[in-house]
Amino acid sequence: MIDLVADLGEGFGAYGIGSDSELLDIVSSANIACGFHAGDPDIMNSTVAQCVARGVGIGAHPSFPDLRGFGRRAMDLTEGEVRNDVIYQLGALSAFAASHGSRVSHIAPHGRLGNLVAVRPDYAAAVADAAAGVDGELIVVAQEGELAKAARERGLRVALVGIVDRAYQEDGTLVPRGLPGAVLHDPNAIVERTVRMVCEGRIATVSGSDLEIRADTVLLHGDNAGAVDLARLIRSELTAAGVRIAPVADVLAAQHPVV
Amino acid sequence: MIDLVADLGEGFGAYGIGSDSELLDIVSSANIACGFHAGDPDIMNSTVAQCVARGVGIGAHPSFPDLRGFGRRAMDLTEGEVRNDVIYQLGALSAFAASHGSRVSHIAPHGRLGNLVAVRPDYAAAVADAAAGVDGELIVVAQEGELAKAARERGLRVALVGIVDRAYQEDGTLVPRGLPGAVLHDPNAIVERTVRMVCEGRIATVSGSDLEIRADTVLLHGDNAGAVDLARLIRSELTAAGVRIAPVADVLAAQHPVV
Amino acid sequence: MIDLVADLGEGFGAYGIGSDSELLDIVSSANIACGFHAGDPDIMNSTVAQCVARGVGIGAHPSFPDLRGFGRRAMDLTEGEVRNDVIYQLGALSAFAASHGSRVSHIAPHGRLGNLVAVRPDYAAAVADAAAGVDGELIVVAQEGELAKAARERGLRVALVGIVDRAYQEDGTLVPRGLPGAVLHDPNAIVERTVRMVCEGRIATVSGSDLEIRADTVLLHGDNAGAVDLARLIRSELTAAGVRIAPVADVLAAQHPVV
Amino acid sequence: MIDLVADLGEGFGAYGIGSDSELLDIVSSANIACGFHAGDPDIMNSTVAQCVARGVGIGAHPSFPDLRGFGRRAMDLTEGEVRNDVIYQLGALSAFAASHGSRVSHIAPHGRLGNLVAVRPDYAAAVADAAAGVDGELIVVAQEGELAKAARERGLRVALVGIVDRAYQEDGTLVPRGLPGAVLHDPNAIVERTVRMVCEGRIATVSGSDLEIRADTVLLHGDNAGAVDLARLIRSELTAAGVRIAPVADVLAAQHPVV
Repeated sequence: MIDLVADLGEGFGAYGIGSDSELLDIVSSANIACGFHAGDPDIMNSTVAQCVARGVGIGAHPSFPDLRGFGRRAMDLTEGEVRNDVIYQLGALSAFAASHGSRVSHIAPHGRLGNLVAVRPDYAAAVADAAAGVDGELIVVAQEGELAKAARERGLRVALVGIVDRAYQEDGTLVPRGLPGAVLHDPNAIVERTVRMVCEGRIATVSGSDLEIRADTVLLHGDNAGAVDLARLIRSELTAAGVRIAPVADVLAAQHPVV
Repeated sequence: MIDLVADLGEGFGAYGIGSDSELLDIVSSANIACGFHAGDPDIMNSTVAQCVARGVGIGAHPSFPDLRGFGRRAMDLTEGEVRNDVIYQLGALSAFAASHGSRVSHIAPHGRLGNLVAVRPDYAAAVADAAAGVDGELIVVAQEGELAKAARERGLRVALVGIVDRAYQEDGTLVPRGLPGAVLHDPNAIVERTVRMVCEGRIATVSGSDLEIRADTVLLHGDNAGAVDLARLIRSELTAAGVRIAPVADVLAAQHPVV
Repeated sequence: MIDLVADLGEGFGAYGIGSDSELLDIVSSANIACGFHAGDPDIMNSTVAQCVARGVGIGAHPSFPDLRGFGRRAMDLTEGEVRNDVIYQLGALSAFAASHGSRVSHIAPHGRLGNLVAVRPDYAAAVADAAAGVDGELIVVAQEGELAKAARERGLRVALVGIVDRAYQEDGTLVPRGLPGAVLHDPNAIVERTVRMVCEGRIATVSGSDLEIRADTVLLHGDNAGAVDLARLIRSELTAAGVRIAPVADVLAAQHPVV
Repeated sequence: MIDLVADLGEGFGAYGIGSDSELLDIVSSANIACGFHAGDPDIMNSTVAQCVARGVGIGAHPSFPDLRGFGRRAMDLTEGEVRNDVIYQLGALSAFAASHGSRVSHIAPHGRLGNLVAVRPDYAAAVADAAAGVDGELIVVAQEGELAKAARERGLRVALVGIVDRAYQEDGTLVPRGLPGAVLHDPNAIVERTVRMVCEGRIATVSGSDLEIRADTVLLHGDNAGAVDLARLIRSELTAAGVRIAPVADVLAAQHPVV
């Protein structure tokens, strides 16, 4: 069983971005923008409503407060500021989920904040404290790193995310963007890697060796028509391989069934 | 029993406003700004923490999205936009309450939105739908008017707020600002009116006649030293008259005890 | 001689909107968003640079401060607030023009503000005062109405804008949106009306009668591929009819040559 | 001759901060917030009006776009983003100056941006390019460092600012905040240092040696009553010592008179 997740609800006001309507038929979970890098209350409401209607898991996608920079620019915030910003965004999304009879199942920091929580213990603690303080049942979606560690230390469940269009190094981290081969472009190769990662728990590293890897969710994109086609192909190939696609909470529950 | 409530947490970033620390020792409930007209995540967190530490009831004080206008300027929003803006703000505050082991007990719209929900059925429905959708246990704090009506229609409890420094007309509405005598300035007169309203359920109208009035909470101000002194005097005179001061949820519970 | 103008630079941060690159090859003037309803400093800089490179006239397109509502929602501002908001936006754009060795030639309020200045004398005065205070050489682009009147009273030049995809009433005002026939959709009819308006100074009203009309500039759109095609067709048909397309300042100068 | 300058117009909407009305009677120049860390169009208009009425020189005080952080938090912007943000703010203020029959005389970056331009060549180039592109007559107010260097390279005049409540090191830079003795608190000592710096061009360093120092303007503060009293004392003691207080443009003009 695997979760397929994508960033959704990233428009703002009159502005649309991404391919939400197509992706909503492909994914089993959504990382929903909470108004700081993208998203506004109307878009959040509409995105949550569509997720609930289709059984797509609702995740918070909090960011640095930087609409103009789409959350991609680092800001020099204190740990407390990051924590409070995340609590604010998480709460806002939770209220939309509640108003549609549902709840937020997971949290996955966006953009530059998402990069930094993997390596900065203070920001990792900020996000983990925010999640644990608001709802101890929340699942933290991350790669292995500081955030995953901080979340586990607070008793939160962690879902590991596989980044299937990026090359991995032997230590399990991604080849940094900008280095040769960091980003994969061949759809067939990406699909093949995804199926192998999900079914065998292994992926070929950039050096050619095999890496054991656990992924509870796979991150899909919808930036353009090609990305949506690839996302659709990943879903159909996984299904053809006998893999069940389900929200991340179901994936974790199946791993650790309550007796 | 009566609740004393004031607007709190209305600073922003480096900016302070009001007399929060003094008021927190006087009131039993707080209307806390949620970031749209004032307040930011750090201020919300700090204000909620202080409320929890002192047993002050936590209320959401949502506004039109107009930081520069402090929520005092009307905006031509749709009913859906108002509803979603209120859900967003209510959720954000709820998360801070949760992270401090508490919850939001009431909601009281701020400024121009607060004025308009009394007379516009669409905005009243928007706020009542937001509250009912997020948490059916929320108490709506309002004067009699469209919001109180819409809240009752949705099964929400309503706490009526007494505005003790404003003159009432015989129909129970306030004398509009700008008309002679609309605003009372004599502290002793205000205190006397407050005690009579709370203890006897009556207040003298601008025309001299007596009006039966129910108030579950009394709105205090902290704009300046004089306002804080008046707030303190109201509390001490009510206490001297044998009135118990308690959060609005306790006031309503005492009226309708669960058998 | 006629000017062709369109709203440009209306993206924000990561968000694009409209068809700027296509329109820049069609228009002779641009109404450039100034950051309040759309546009940001980077987009303003880039849009101004492209206008200067192609000889397209630079116009300020100020708005209510409402990025989320794209300037389409009315706000209850004072005359002074509107004036100062317009001065701010006009100044910001002027600095980009200066940094590219050019200047702002005209001003055309956006969206809801644009609608309201035609009928509200206070907002009309606010915009005209802003323009006159910053640069008395600015051309105010408007339909006949309160803004055109206020601008003339302050000695500003006024360029009248023809709205060729909307039906006119016999008094020269537009048939309000929502009424039957208010918006024209047939490209050929729109082109024919445009050429007749420009060449003969006449347009057929919704009732069938002929209206004398002066237009110094024609408003084009770029919302979709069809709109861009129509804009291109208008330009080519006007050119084929022997009409010279030039920035609005040139159009006015040709009407009132300095002896 | 020396200029006395302070940061002014740093309120926002309903929020006030600082002691503008007192400082306006003391200073000869103002660094005026331009809306990104503080200030809004109404406050900018009012502050510029007061400066013009009193002959106080008008300076732009641009910042990172961070109202909540009051411009004190570093942001990871590109050089182009900083340049365009500064052009935008500078233009906005220039329009208010123009509408009051005046002009912006100088530019002094605020807060964290002000710190970073002293040491980061890319941000220094961004600010200097912005100033030079908008108005080559602008004076750049800075300490010696990357910004002063970049400004001179572009042919801009530089006014050096003396920070009289901070300890200097032997190389002319300030003792970093946090180190012992970095900030001076004794008003008499600060006044004495100021007079000596202005009249003799010398200041005692933290190590006790004497440093030759040129200051064209002295930075005053108005954070509290004590700061305003100190500012007033500095002015009166300089005047008593026969020093003329004048806007920074006059100070520079007196040094390099046009023959």
